[in-house]
Amino acid sequence: MSRVYNFSAGPAMLPQEVLEQSAKEMLDYQGCGMSVMEMSHRSSVFQGIIDKAQQDLRKLLNLSDEYEVLFLQGGASQQFAMVPTNLMKQGAADYIITGQWAKKAWQEAKKFGKATAVASSQEQNFSEIPDCSNLNLTPEADYLYLCENNTIYGTKFWELPDSKGKPIVADVSSCFLSQPVDVNRYGLLFAGAQKNIGPAGVVVVIIRKDLIRTDLPETVPTMLQYHIHAENGSLYNTPPCYGIYICGKVFQWIEAQGGLKAMEEKNRYKAGVLYDFLDESKLFKGTVRRQDRSWMNVPFVTGDAQLDADFVKQAAQKGLVNLKGHRTVGGMRASIYNAMPLEGVEALVEFMKQFERENR
Amino acid sequence: MSRVYNFSAGPAMLPQEVLEQSAKEMLDYQGCGMSVMEMSHRSSVFQGIIDKAQQDLRKLLNLSDEYEVLFLQGGASQQFAMVPTNLMKQGAADYIITGQWAKKAWQEAKKFGKATAVASSQEQNFSEIPDCSNLNLTPEADYLYLCENNTIYGTKFWELPDSKGKPIVADVSSCFLSQPVDVNRYGLLFAGAQKNIGPAGVVVVIIRKDLIRTDLPETVPTMLQYHIHAENGSLYNTPPCYGIYICGKVFQWIEAQGGLKAMEEKNRYKAGVLYDFLDESKLFKGTVRRQDRSWMNVPFVTGDAQLDADFVKQAAQKGLVNLKGHRTVGGMRASIYNAMPLEGVEALVEFMKQFERENR
Repeated sequence: MSRVYNFSAGPAMLPQEVLEQSAKEMLDYQGCGMSVMEMSHRSSVFQGIIDKAQQDLRKLLNLSDEYEVLFLQGGASQQFAMVPTNLMKQGAADYIITGQWAKKAWQEAKKFGKATAVASSQEQNFSEIPDCSNLNLTPEADYLYLCENNTIYGTKFWELPDSKGKPIVADVSSCFLSQPVDVNRYGLLFAGAQKNIGPAGVVVVIIRKDLIRTDLPETVPTMLQYHIHAENGSLYNTPPCYGIYICGKVFQWIEAQGGLKAMEEKNRYKAGVLYDFLDESKLFKGTVRRQDRSWMNVPFVTGDAQLDADFVKQAAQKGLVNLKGHRTVGGMRASIYNAMPLEGVEALVEFMKQFERENR
Repeated sequence: MSRVYNFSAGPAMLPQEVLEQSAKEMLDYQGCGMSVMEMSHRSSVFQGIIDKAQQDLRKLLNLSDEYEVLFLQGGASQQFAMVPTNLMKQGAADYIITGQWAKKAWQEAKKFGKATAVASSQEQNFSEIPDCSNLNLTPEADYLYLCENNTIYGTKFWELPDSKGKPIVADVSSCFLSQPVDVNRYGLLFAGAQKNIGPAGVVVVIIRKDLIRTDLPETVPTMLQYHIHAENGSLYNTPPCYGIYICGKVFQWIEAQGGLKAMEEKNRYKAGVLYDFLDESKLFKGTVRRQDRSWMNVPFVTGDAQLDADFVKQAAQKGLVNLKGHRTVGGMRASIYNAMPLEGVEALVEFMKQFERENR
């Protein structure tokens, strides 16, 4: 068996220890004689798994009792509908457009009320976070929505905008648990698991309890109502049990690494190794405005499409895979989430140096 | 490691070979250097996995090109909303009420139009399938809905009702792939994976293509529109990749067992061993009208709640676990899906005989 360094934007690398443990427990979870996949979601063993996952996540985030943690299905895409159907009380919301995912969320919200784009960096091909220092918010808006880390473009909000008292709703799929976060500054956070915390098929939603409405219009599908899932501890229907189990293992792994503070240090250093090289390279350059650079997704280009393609191909031959950039940006993108070891980034930079020597 | 015989109603037993293969491939799927959990859903390797899963399922079902196969999230519960929002063209549908799940589907449908219960066995505590020989269908109904195998009550439709030309929509979660089926008799079938085909978090939808509408009302969430998923080959958003991979392995396992014909023979024989004993026992008796008995879920009682509890407890000590019946039926329930080996049912009957000798 030879593992590659997988720079995929998601689904993405998971900690090898987590995979090893899961393989070992596949036929018999801790002596109960069955796989977690085979286990009733109403069993005490599974209740223990989901409870521990939630407790560990709460501990990592230092989460107060004012917030509910939900493990749901349908990914971020389903949250794009759940957020407005559940949170638009007055029928309006403001959106900051920083990329394709924020835009999709905005378009979905328009189905359910008045959704206004209050800032956008579309004209800069989303290579920066727009100025949000004094947003012209809609008075009756129920929340301000943003996508905190933009997977495709490699930008990140390093400061939250002033929402003027309105709850901030953030898609944190691609930066979740990559550094400490003050959840109290948000009304709702959600993260598709398949980037930093587990396999696709689980989305974690953290919602301030006072935002969970029970008086939703009759026409909101039951499965799209937060209160239904909150009242049932994410067990209204059969949840994605195996995915939740893997997420729980990743939470434990993060704790064992030293928690979010330690992740922050590792991620800052890891991203620094790559950005430092990009800043000195004569061949490669980053595509994002410096102050908006993400630590998780690093897009870069040579400026020559053929050379980019050669790079991606040769890198793959060295076990550095999935470096092709998103078609809307072109070039390359290295996604270096929590589970990407420093050695992977160092190997990438080494190969970039070699490629630069050979191709200048 | 010692595996138990797990009679859980779902999530439920999976074939041991499938779990063994999955454990082996956990860190490196067929030499690609990563787990299926870590793999981009846009990669050619994952495309191969989902394509093969679909092809194998089509082959098992001998499915014509008139039907689309979708791998979705949200389970049967989300289908309860998707079915009416997508299929109610004239705003009406008829439901046959054979248990809690059919009832939930009916109640959900009422959010979106006129949903009429045209038959029910509620007064018999759902211990039988109601007479459906001449249903009084609503003229403008867009479909006739039924739950083909009732997991909680252990009943099954052994004949489909005459739907008088209207498409039949069936929840087949707990009998999917347990025997050959003529899909051409249905407009839409769906099955939560966690009973006969894989882990929770995947629901398979098979829909006749002419029923897939693109002219849905603006207010239907994008993720709840069948045409979106159909147009994108179940890859509109990141699907539950790992679950689909396991389902694919189960489809291959069924094929290797001899396909649905072979499953039917095994399941008939397995269920027969248990029902034959129930019919001759002086202590235990089945709760379902004979002609409506399910091969997948077999509820039975002693008539004495304390004795039932003792049985469940002692059985568990023998490695026969999750035999407690649903609270609405009481007593015991043995779920004996495809992956339950004959030896498991024989061990159960042996223990029932012993218990009967000791407790009469």
